[in-house]
Amino acid sequence: MTTESLTAVDAQLQASVQQFYARHMQLLDDGRIEEWASYFTPDGTFAVDGIPVPARGREEIVAGASRTVAQLAEQGIMRRHWLGMSAISPANGSVRVRSYALVVQITKEGAAVRSSTTCEDVLVADGDAWLIQERLVKQDVPA
Amino acid sequence: MTTESLTAVDAQLQASVQQFYARHMQLLDDGRIEEWASYFTPDGTFAVDGIPVPARGREEIVAGASRTVAQLAEQGIMRRHWLGMSAISPANGSVRVRSYALVVQITKEGAAVRSSTTCEDVLVADGDAWLIQERLVKQDVPA
Amino acid sequence: MTTESLTAVDAQLQASVQQFYARHMQLLDDGRIEEWASYFTPDGTFAVDGIPVPARGREEIVAGASRTVAQLAEQGIMRRHWLGMSAISPANGSVRVRSYALVVQITKEGAAVRSSTTCEDVLVADGDAWLIQERLVKQDVPA
Repeated sequence: MTTESLTAVDAQLQASVQQFYARHMQLLDDGRIEEWASYFTPDGTFAVDGIPVPARGREEIVAGASRTVAQLAEQGIMRRHWLGMSAISPANGSVRVRSYALVVQITKEGAAVRSSTTCEDVLVADGDAWLIQERLVKQDVPA
Repeated sequence: MTTESLTAVDAQLQASVQQFYARHMQLLDDGRIEEWASYFTPDGTFAVDGIPVPARGREEIVAGASRTVAQLAEQGIMRRHWLGMSAISPANGSVRVRSYALVVQITKEGAAVRSSTTCEDVLVADGDAWLIQERLVKQDVPA
Repeated sequence: MTTESLTAVDAQLQASVQQFYARHMQLLDDGRIEEWASYFTPDGTFAVDGIPVPARGREEIVAGASRTVAQLAEQGIMRRHWLGMSAISPANGSVRVRSYALVVQITKEGAAVRSSTTCEDVLVADGDAWLIQERLVKQDVPA
């Protein structure tokens, strides 16, 4: 990666990617899982490092996220997913985005950072919109 | 909300909204309350859920924020307001923005997340600039 | 600073500055210090308030950052630098950017906010890219 590639990122591309993530994460945190999952391609994958097989397709992705949402609700936990520092790299019709993702957790005791991860997405265009073809979330863990 | 609406957000609109918030929040955290309040329309409202009547007009907004600034100074507390994940929706001459807002609090003991909220603004154009017509801040509290 | 200046910030300028910081901070947190330092001009300065003499030139900047990276690795600490709320002000061929910077620290015990700072940069154009001519990092400390 060189600094020369900076201007290759068009302002409209960055704006559309940032708006995509803003809506996507707000849907997740609002528990609107079906709508959140509609931001993946029908055969999209969601991998988490340490888990051997990624979720594949919206149905599996919805199932996994719904379980988490139900568990958190039971435990009286609300979460806010902040995605930021997104490095955007167009590549042959798709777009690679490597971001930091910070999970803020709110309980009756207050708000605190719950975890820090990186999120590596491959986005593909679907008409005027973006869809996630592949997502890989890596937990930040010291060596 | 559908993903098709993504490209409706013009890059210049997003840039101007983000710059608006960057300046607005830095003024607040620098204690420059009059300048911060000038980002509201003269009859703008600032509502916080749980408080029955919103502050209306710059004078009331300044009064409320000044009290908070004075209290924090007395207690040796500094704050940084991070606004992010802003979903921007143009609507009939105004712009609706729903953001996450994270309050980082710094005391002699160090820095920590103080609270997590959502911030829903209605922005209106004032010549080349934005002004806040309505703000509603909701504290994130688990159900 | 007036709200009228908002539209002076071109969307392409903001996008390029945000992409610059995303890449710059990811390089730092990945321990790729030489590449991170290449985002400074050859004679760029990195000042931290409270430290009498700033690091000057890439060699000194690399030396300082490498020491920190080695110490953190020894202590089993990973860091994520979030730069945000960047207020961008073009000025005579250079660009001034005042941002908040939040350091998230990850240890075996988990993730937490480590410190909150402001970061004031002077960026200069280098062909199609940005380079940092001057950086001043101020620790947020209550009065």
